[in-house]
Amino acid sequence: MTSVNAPGLAPWRDSARTVGERVEALLAEMTLEEKVAQLGSIWLQVGGDGNVAPLQDRFKAVETLDEQLSHGLGHLTRVYGTAPVSVAEGAARLRELQERVVASNRLGIPAIAHEECLTGFATFGATAYPTPLAWAATFDPDLVERMAAAIGADLRAAGVHQGLSPVVDVVRDYRWGRVEESLGEDPHLVGRLGAAYVRGLESAGVIATLKHFAGYGASRAARNHAPVSIGPRELADVILPPFEIALREGGARSVMVSYTDLDGVPVGASADLLRRLLREDWGFEGTVVSDYWSIPFLASMHQVAEDAAGAGAVALTAGVDVDLPETISYGPHLVANVRAGRVAESAVDESVRRILRQKIELGLLDGGPLVPEGADGVDLDSPRNRAIAAAIAERSVVLLSNPDNLLPIGPGTTARLAVIGPCADDPRTMMGCYAFPNHVLDRYPEHGMGLSVASIRECFGAEFPYADVRYEKGVDVSGDDRSGIAGAAEAAAEADLALVFVGDRAGLFGGGTSGEGCDAPHLRLPGLQPELVEAVLATGTPTVLVVVSGRPYALGAYKDRVAAAVQAFFPGVEGGAAVAGVLSGRVNPSGRLPVQIPETPFVNPSTYLQPPLGGRTEGITSVDPTAAYAFGHGLSYSAIAYVALTTDRAECPTSGSIEARVTVRNTGSRAAEEVVQLYASDPVAQVARPVVQLIGFARVALEPGEERVVAFDVPAHAFSYTGIDLRRIVEPGTIVLTAGPSAQERPLRADIRLTGETAVLGARL
Amino acid sequence: MTSVNAPGLAPWRDSARTVGERVEALLAEMTLEEKVAQLGSIWLQVGGDGNVAPLQDRFKAVETLDEQLSHGLGHLTRVYGTAPVSVAEGAARLRELQERVVASNRLGIPAIAHEECLTGFATFGATAYPTPLAWAATFDPDLVERMAAAIGADLRAAGVHQGLSPVVDVVRDYRWGRVEESLGEDPHLVGRLGAAYVRGLESAGVIATLKHFAGYGASRAARNHAPVSIGPRELADVILPPFEIALREGGARSVMVSYTDLDGVPVGASADLLRRLLREDWGFEGTVVSDYWSIPFLASMHQVAEDAAGAGAVALTAGVDVDLPETISYGPHLVANVRAGRVAESAVDESVRRILRQKIELGLLDGGPLVPEGADGVDLDSPRNRAIAAAIAERSVVLLSNPDNLLPIGPGTTARLAVIGPCADDPRTMMGCYAFPNHVLDRYPEHGMGLSVASIRECFGAEFPYADVRYEKGVDVSGDDRSGIAGAAEAAAEADLALVFVGDRAGLFGGGTSGEGCDAPHLRLPGLQPELVEAVLATGTPTVLVVVSGRPYALGAYKDRVAAAVQAFFPGVEGGAAVAGVLSGRVNPSGRLPVQIPETPFVNPSTYLQPPLGGRTEGITSVDPTAAYAFGHGLSYSAIAYVALTTDRAECPTSGSIEARVTVRNTGSRAAEEVVQLYASDPVAQVARPVVQLIGFARVALEPGEERVVAFDVPAHAFSYTGIDLRRIVEPGTIVLTAGPSAQERPLRADIRLTGETAVLGARL
Repeated sequence: MTSVNAPGLAPWRDSARTVGERVEALLAEMTLEEKVAQLGSIWLQVGGDGNVAPLQDRFKAVETLDEQLSHGLGHLTRVYGTAPVSVAEGAARLRELQERVVASNRLGIPAIAHEECLTGFATFGATAYPTPLAWAATFDPDLVERMAAAIGADLRAAGVHQGLSPVVDVVRDYRWGRVEESLGEDPHLVGRLGAAYVRGLESAGVIATLKHFAGYGASRAARNHAPVSIGPRELADVILPPFEIALREGGARSVMVSYTDLDGVPVGASADLLRRLLREDWGFEGTVVSDYWSIPFLASMHQVAEDAAGAGAVALTAGVDVDLPETISYGPHLVANVRAGRVAESAVDESVRRILRQKIELGLLDGGPLVPEGADGVDLDSPRNRAIAAAIAERSVVLLSNPDNLLPIGPGTTARLAVIGPCADDPRTMMGCYAFPNHVLDRYPEHGMGLSVASIRECFGAEFPYADVRYEKGVDVSGDDRSGIAGAAEAAAEADLALVFVGDRAGLFGGGTSGEGCDAPHLRLPGLQPELVEAVLATGTPTVLVVVSGRPYALGAYKDRVAAAVQAFFPGVEGGAAVAGVLSGRVNPSGRLPVQIPETPFVNPSTYLQPPLGGRTEGITSVDPTAAYAFGHGLSYSAIAYVALTTDRAECPTSGSIEARVTVRNTGSRAAEEVVQLYASDPVAQVARPVVQLIGFARVALEPGEERVVAFDVPAHAFSYTGIDLRRIVEPGTIVLTAGPSAQERPLRADIRLTGETAVLGARL
Repeated sequence: MTSVNAPGLAPWRDSARTVGERVEALLAEMTLEEKVAQLGSIWLQVGGDGNVAPLQDRFKAVETLDEQLSHGLGHLTRVYGTAPVSVAEGAARLRELQERVVASNRLGIPAIAHEECLTGFATFGATAYPTPLAWAATFDPDLVERMAAAIGADLRAAGVHQGLSPVVDVVRDYRWGRVEESLGEDPHLVGRLGAAYVRGLESAGVIATLKHFAGYGASRAARNHAPVSIGPRELADVILPPFEIALREGGARSVMVSYTDLDGVPVGASADLLRRLLREDWGFEGTVVSDYWSIPFLASMHQVAEDAAGAGAVALTAGVDVDLPETISYGPHLVANVRAGRVAESAVDESVRRILRQKIELGLLDGGPLVPEGADGVDLDSPRNRAIAAAIAERSVVLLSNPDNLLPIGPGTTARLAVIGPCADDPRTMMGCYAFPNHVLDRYPEHGMGLSVASIRECFGAEFPYADVRYEKGVDVSGDDRSGIAGAAEAAAEADLALVFVGDRAGLFGGGTSGEGCDAPHLRLPGLQPELVEAVLATGTPTVLVVVSGRPYALGAYKDRVAAAVQAFFPGVEGGAAVAGVLSGRVNPSGRLPVQIPETPFVNPSTYLQPPLGGRTEGITSVDPTAAYAFGHGLSYSAIAYVALTTDRAECPTSGSIEARVTVRNTGSRAAEEVVQLYASDPVAQVARPVVQLIGFARVALEPGEERVVAFDVPAHAFSYTGIDLRRIVEPGTIVLTAGPSAQERPLRADIRLTGETAVLGARL
């Protein structure tokens, strides 16, 4: 219990002491200003104008940079990610900044450097992986974990300590621009993939940040930041589980606060969520960071404080530890609030402890290099990264329909192929809004993409070397120029097969058709793309519809008229080969829908997770929300038979668990990967429950003729829900298990009987 | 305290006793079967097939009619309102049924006869008043009260005891089919008009039924019966106030349970709402009736019970007194549930007491005629009714725009007028879905309308005797026949002025474009009407757009291209004259929008009651929900100046009240009626609050040049809201009062300062 205090070594620098001792020693030494400074951040423009977010100019720090640094600094914001700088430039700048931070503050504490990393390290020249909705379509946590580990390794090598990912918001309305950033509409899927991402990132020593806590994806009419109408039960049963899973199973060390209010209470003002739920109930010990400017927004947007200073008092009291991306509401305002008695200094201390603990855990007080040796030379687009990006892209492409087995086209085809559409030959249409080319480089056209990326069309040469390929863009993703439609139709008319590539171009705040701040009014394909599709279909040439997008679009108008349909969610830098490979048959498609594909553009919101009255109700409403393609759906070029669903027991105590076994067989002639899905239904409950809900999934490889048994351990708490008195319960009674290839097609069934008393899990909400 | 018990007179028939004594005496006499029978109902088909609701055949009573009647009967369902019968036939049938009920049960207790009466007595030949959304557009509680008193007098004269109106659901999404049945999107407006309706109906001795308690109008994507995502704060601050106002200020004696679940809990299974809130907190002593089949729906739709019998146990225990429209889940099932100990007999007794109390209050046990003398000859479409219907229709028509003062056309015009559109010459397009012609007579074409109703076109002769009027329907309200568009455009091209009448045809469950079960996917005008409008506009002839509808449709595409725009919500039997009269100038328009008119069809949901982030947020979302015409908007042919807003004090205790005075002056040359609107804003609150909210309104008549001061008594609790800890509070601080002619145009402002401690109103939710 004693520790050796080397002569002249401050106790907080003594790595022989416990982290807790070091934190307390440091805290005891700090002035109020120094403590508060640890809860702040700066965002320096590194080349260029640097404005990523449109509201960036609305807020200004109270102090000059020198003044800020003299007290110390909590976070350095996006040194790599704000403007196009090489990794060498970024590393040099980060090193210089860290040295200045250390030199400027009395205690010599460096900052935590954070960056965005949703589709990979969001910096110039780094691999742009597929968008999260594509990871979700893989239903492959191991692959996601490998990707996140690679992202983490790159971040860590560059001296970055925290990554602002993953997004574990459950999709509630496909119109939302950030659907592409999410892991789909099912809490279990989001939770398991989110936890996998967290494990990967944290395995590299990088702090993962769960966002956006909580309810952000349920905003009114899917408008970004709009109010969230939600009750405690839906919050607990749909929105919160992925956060809890990613904390418990992933070990995320940071949580970002959502911009939105829930039933009127801005999350950043909610001690109930940030202290009672997150800290007391869940035992979370990491940091709670604001979303960018979400603290001053408490005054300007939510009007729960009179000004930015008041907003800081509200946020710190509610439990927000760090003011990002720049110190606006904390800093001198928070010092004054503490001195005026508006904020308890003990609350400041709590937050500072968390930051200091992380800095010590990260080794920032151990005297090592502030930026790792070799950071200048990190290969951010390594073959390893590319291989992972390709693997995800290939597993993420979803074959929606192929009634006449027109696909695959076959590698030796000599057919005339018309390649049509704005997403066929534009690499940026394969990337999400947090991929650097879309996130930042739109403002720096002279820098190009910073990456070598083959478009889908460019990959046609390799996939179809003998084919006669004619390309016509037809129309842009958005805009009203229809001059190319006739040419595209002509190309289709002259071809044996038309392939139409439509979808999104991601951007920020209205700069794209998908992405943050790019919410859609409805789910019709953007711009004139519906006209293009109609023009091609009108030729009578068999047509393959390939949607490359960030959200699902309504395909009901096309589904019975196209020869085949394929859905790719932004598949990243290796997406061109993946999509072309699926079309050629080199890749046997195995992606599954993490969101439904709607039948019509206007039935929003509607996801698969609905009680009976949330779905089709003939004779009750004239509007039918039934999807064109179900959650979990996805075909392959092989055929998989669902043979049997058995359980190890017919009865199970409400506190017990069962094993469910699903037998599947590859009855086709090609090796395939099948995503076996296990669903549960609760025929009688205290409250309205979803008709079916995913409780397990497994991606399994099957050789032709091979049969495999997939075992699922299902704890009874998988059937828990928030009962009528707002406690989470597992009730005795019948549960219906079903298994199959989608939420709609579940040919196998096994009933189990939960026995014993109602199990109560946790406190009343 | 003693009462005279006449020889042979059962104590419950002794009107010298108190009602309570009579109830207890009766209850003590009743068997369990007899008690339970009072909580049931029968719906006998009176001529025709009688199926009003599509699900009517799904449920069957357990007992034969004779068996049911032998125990007694709670309610007789819609004897007049199910099929086209004359009032004489209906009265005879009701008398016969009541006599049979009385003769069949040992205690000789008659039934309560209930009917629908949303737009007037829903029976053959009765006045079809304007739809509630049109009453709301009058902003005239006195007029609504007069109408309801007239409806009540007709019902009472026909032997009807209870009317299933008014609808006090606050509109949350214009796509909902029942928007036409509502009183708009503002809780204060809905509450005051709902209370006025209740006062009127109850003044005639008819039990008013508030529906649908609660949250029905907030269903997901506006799909009828779909789940309601809502938290306790929004429920308390937006949805519940009209119910509370209509109970406290109107004295409604019955409440109908909503079909929906709120955050998972079906209202019919919610003791929290039906017992804790309604009975304990609000002190409600009347009856809680189910919506039709909403009790068995608890099993079949919500799956919170295993079968209809189990649903009955859930509902009775939660606090639903009466099983409508037929005894499905109560009756023998409830008897068995009580005997099995699943339901407390004391809970049954409570419900029976309420029914018996109402029967005694109605005089049903006093030995008088079961149906009033003269019921056979009641004039259900009296000149009195017509005058009220005309007054409401005239005050409800909203002049949206008239930039060049093209309206009024003027009574002596000799112009060539093209009258175009499916709503110009079809009286049924002027009526709501609960007006008998739309509600029932669609299935009995041989009966016609049962009413003399002049269409808008037919009223043109009287309004424009010298004009050359050419009529072209163009298209139907729905359907895909565009053959008439060219003719309509030709008529427009040859005219001096085109008047296009577009909108809805109300129906039930998909049988119309508006009405119960006729939810819309978006807010584009139905069918090919947009094409018709475009074809007329393309002619270049000045065009007046007149929308006659049950919901607001997006008019942003037209608003700058039409010469004038008029909105009429189904204006009822006298609607033709009212609309034509506004166009001619005989009527100076004075209707105001109780709902916004959206700019675009796809920003749903969005109403005016929004915190800052619910509205336009430039730089945050690409979707702008700003309306084309604001809540409260409506022009007249005169001009009203808003002169001054003053208050009697600048400061007010949180428990006090202030008087606000708005001075308005008619600066135009015509007599006008102005709806003066008073709004409040709370610049800093504990939670996100609406940017502005209506707290007062007054319709005032102003002669040319006349100035009037309108005084509003504003209690501080008008500024109350549900605070962060879920208690209703009035906080000290600044409140901004504004006044003007709409929620958007509020030229007058007065700040007041609430002082003292935070006032806490009521318990934690």
